[in-house]
Amino acid sequence: MISAKALDAVLDRIDRDLDQSLERLFALLRIPSISTDPAYSAHCRTAADHVAADLMSLGFETEVRPTGGHPVVVGKASNGGAPRVLFYGHYDVQPVDPLELWETPPFEPRIATLPDGRKIIVARGACDDKGQVMTFVEALRAYKSVTGMLPLGVTMMIEGEEECGSKHLFDFVKDNAQELKLDLALVCDTGMWNAETPSVTTSLRGLVYEEVKLTCADRDLHSGLFGGAAQNPIRVLSRILAAMHDDKGRVTIPGFYDGVPELPSDIKKDLAGLGLTADQFLSQVGLKVPAGESDRMVIEQITTRPTAEINGIIGGYTGEGAKTVIPGEATAKVSFRLVGDQDPDKIRDAFRAFVRARLPADCMADFKNFTGAAAIQLPFDNPALTKTRAALQEEWGKKAVTVGAGGSIPIVGDFKRVLGMDTIMVGFALDDDRVHSPNEKYDLTSFHKGARSWARILAALAQS
Amino acid sequence: MISAKALDAVLDRIDRDLDQSLERLFALLRIPSISTDPAYSAHCRTAADHVAADLMSLGFETEVRPTGGHPVVVGKASNGGAPRVLFYGHYDVQPVDPLELWETPPFEPRIATLPDGRKIIVARGACDDKGQVMTFVEALRAYKSVTGMLPLGVTMMIEGEEECGSKHLFDFVKDNAQELKLDLALVCDTGMWNAETPSVTTSLRGLVYEEVKLTCADRDLHSGLFGGAAQNPIRVLSRILAAMHDDKGRVTIPGFYDGVPELPSDIKKDLAGLGLTADQFLSQVGLKVPAGESDRMVIEQITTRPTAEINGIIGGYTGEGAKTVIPGEATAKVSFRLVGDQDPDKIRDAFRAFVRARLPADCMADFKNFTGAAAIQLPFDNPALTKTRAALQEEWGKKAVTVGAGGSIPIVGDFKRVLGMDTIMVGFALDDDRVHSPNEKYDLTSFHKGARSWARILAALAQS
Repeated sequence: MISAKALDAVLDRIDRDLDQSLERLFALLRIPSISTDPAYSAHCRTAADHVAADLMSLGFETEVRPTGGHPVVVGKASNGGAPRVLFYGHYDVQPVDPLELWETPPFEPRIATLPDGRKIIVARGACDDKGQVMTFVEALRAYKSVTGMLPLGVTMMIEGEEECGSKHLFDFVKDNAQELKLDLALVCDTGMWNAETPSVTTSLRGLVYEEVKLTCADRDLHSGLFGGAAQNPIRVLSRILAAMHDDKGRVTIPGFYDGVPELPSDIKKDLAGLGLTADQFLSQVGLKVPAGESDRMVIEQITTRPTAEINGIIGGYTGEGAKTVIPGEATAKVSFRLVGDQDPDKIRDAFRAFVRARLPADCMADFKNFTGAAAIQLPFDNPALTKTRAALQEEWGKKAVTVGAGGSIPIVGDFKRVLGMDTIMVGFALDDDRVHSPNEKYDLTSFHKGARSWARILAALAQS
Repeated sequence: MISAKALDAVLDRIDRDLDQSLERLFALLRIPSISTDPAYSAHCRTAADHVAADLMSLGFETEVRPTGGHPVVVGKASNGGAPRVLFYGHYDVQPVDPLELWETPPFEPRIATLPDGRKIIVARGACDDKGQVMTFVEALRAYKSVTGMLPLGVTMMIEGEEECGSKHLFDFVKDNAQELKLDLALVCDTGMWNAETPSVTTSLRGLVYEEVKLTCADRDLHSGLFGGAAQNPIRVLSRILAAMHDDKGRVTIPGFYDGVPELPSDIKKDLAGLGLTADQFLSQVGLKVPAGESDRMVIEQITTRPTAEINGIIGGYTGEGAKTVIPGEATAKVSFRLVGDQDPDKIRDAFRAFVRARLPADCMADFKNFTGAAAIQLPFDNPALTKTRAALQEEWGKKAVTVGAGGSIPIVGDFKRVLGMDTIMVGFALDDDRVHSPNEKYDLTSFHKGARSWARILAALAQS
């Protein structure tokens, strides 16, 4: 039970400590912990050690635990009472390519000012997820320094493979279920509705991520000698990828929509009431017309409907100038966002069958799977959700909306399935944060009021 | 007019001089004149000087003429009468990597014996094009030494940039049109039908090479946040590329087949008579089933029919692992092999219109053109062709076939367009010569009988 006076002191501490908080965040941002690229393995380890040391300084009993990939940082601090929460975040970041589009080096964090006066933190990971994780850590630090203790029992689990599919975290959670199964999970890896309106994310789309490599000839061929007669794997791949959507933006893979629920009409009405226009949402990235299912609202397309996207493609000659080659192989990365009860394994198999059914003679397909995670949905009557929304409203002066997120945090599904825990997802990212893109940023306000929000949420959750 | 007796003396001279001819070829092969690599520029110059000195020794008025790149050797020898021929070849060679696959150093030419008893010359350039050029030069040398003069007026144009696109030769030909415009062009840079059957190449496919870049959003997007609503340029590109061929392998671009001639039935019969099966041709690269127009023979698909090929494609994340990005742009390289009277400019425009017609909202296309060369076709009733075929038949004891080549020698198009000259392409390369690959070779028979063939062809052409 945190008194109003104690909470005020904690909030005040956060305000006065802001410059030092930023220094601490910058130190973490300077570590290029790109998890998907093996060349950055040592940096990932450095980031893990860095986070562990910080948690230890807050009194956490901390370990950097090995996995088959990058390690997981686990820190435990108990204050003897309930509830006990598991906070999940990640210290790894996305690759930075194309590097030439960054205005300043991605791992040299800086404060900049936007034309509209907003101050922002610019760096890879400024938002996703280092900046967000540190809002929670800074709230804890303020409690520790003002009250000498944490407001409730906290276990931190900060992983290093979220940006490459959290491959080893699933087993990690299963293997350590007993110590990780607490009363509630908290995640700070989502966004606000807009810069003034806080939000709690109550559903997440699932994710299946596949790589398909097509091989035709056993070598690259000269298009002058073989052009016309030799099967071209780029042509085959294009035909297959083009067939994945119909003219109305609907995915054509047989069985793809099995388990996709129709929204209850009141929820659909709420979504419509948010008044998100296609132009509003898309104009921020230079687009205008929604490219998804043509009979769905934009907000449905990005949160409650499943998708199929081509995330990457490569084949043949891609350098400067011309080379008259017919390549021996071509590769694409394809991912599916899942909703409702869509089964990741069935979607993966259906995709592979779809590809194989379209292979001509002389063409072979090899597949790799990177992720397979089902969608999740938090019950709207969860008491922790009610408390969290109230705390957010106090901080921001505006009712906190509950939304579905288009992205996936696969491990949240396992918190429910394996650990039997609900998850409250609160984050302070904004739509213009350029997450995964060059010049990623995080508003200084998101960082500052984010820490204050967590201080309030923890106080609210500590009331039993 | 060369008497039969004089020709016999010339042929006899070629036979007796074979060892010295090889020494001269070896001296040229020892110069590593790799044109595409700036580190070898001085060697290219050395090769040019070497060729020039040799031509001068045959009485040519010779110059090594500068261009924006490697120089062109021009040698002129007139015997006062007609016809006058322009011989084109190149002194530059391909890079040698992967060097470790060469059995002996690429610029230390040697004679080896194949398991089937054939003697071969092994070195980079042994065939392409130093060995082939020297068949012509040695024929001239024999005339000079036996008759004291050349059998007809000859201008030699030996360039040093064929292996890197002949970039400066087009302007060179235009700028020197007056002196280069003679009665007929001769090229020795093609192959025989097989080791026993000589051939004259009477057509070359043209080439249009385009790069298309599609741009949708103004940055890379997170597929979780934007997936479903944001236009994906890889998806758009796939749809466009997939639409370029119908199910029967026919190109669907409107107007694409304008100017594509149907083969005369006797020529078609000749092609069928060559008995080239799909399996024969494709099994060498691990394929079986022709991927071109399903109603055409393989030999048509690769020589007399036009094609559309995707030579390269790239977009989004192509590194190891998974990245959930919707890219801002995607790029493909697409080339067209042309035949008959297909107009390169019209094909380029038709392709661009085809792409633009399929662009959805929010998607822009940028184009770059790298090559636009029309096909060339030597009329079957060209008198020089008839004489050449007869001369080849005398030397080899077998009827010389006329074939189309699937590849392009763009400058031959300019001989016709800019200089108004037909070109006779005769070469002695074999399919197993490993041109552009490690352990390039040229059969000793190709070299020896190649020189004898040219001696006969020149005698035949000198008859007016």
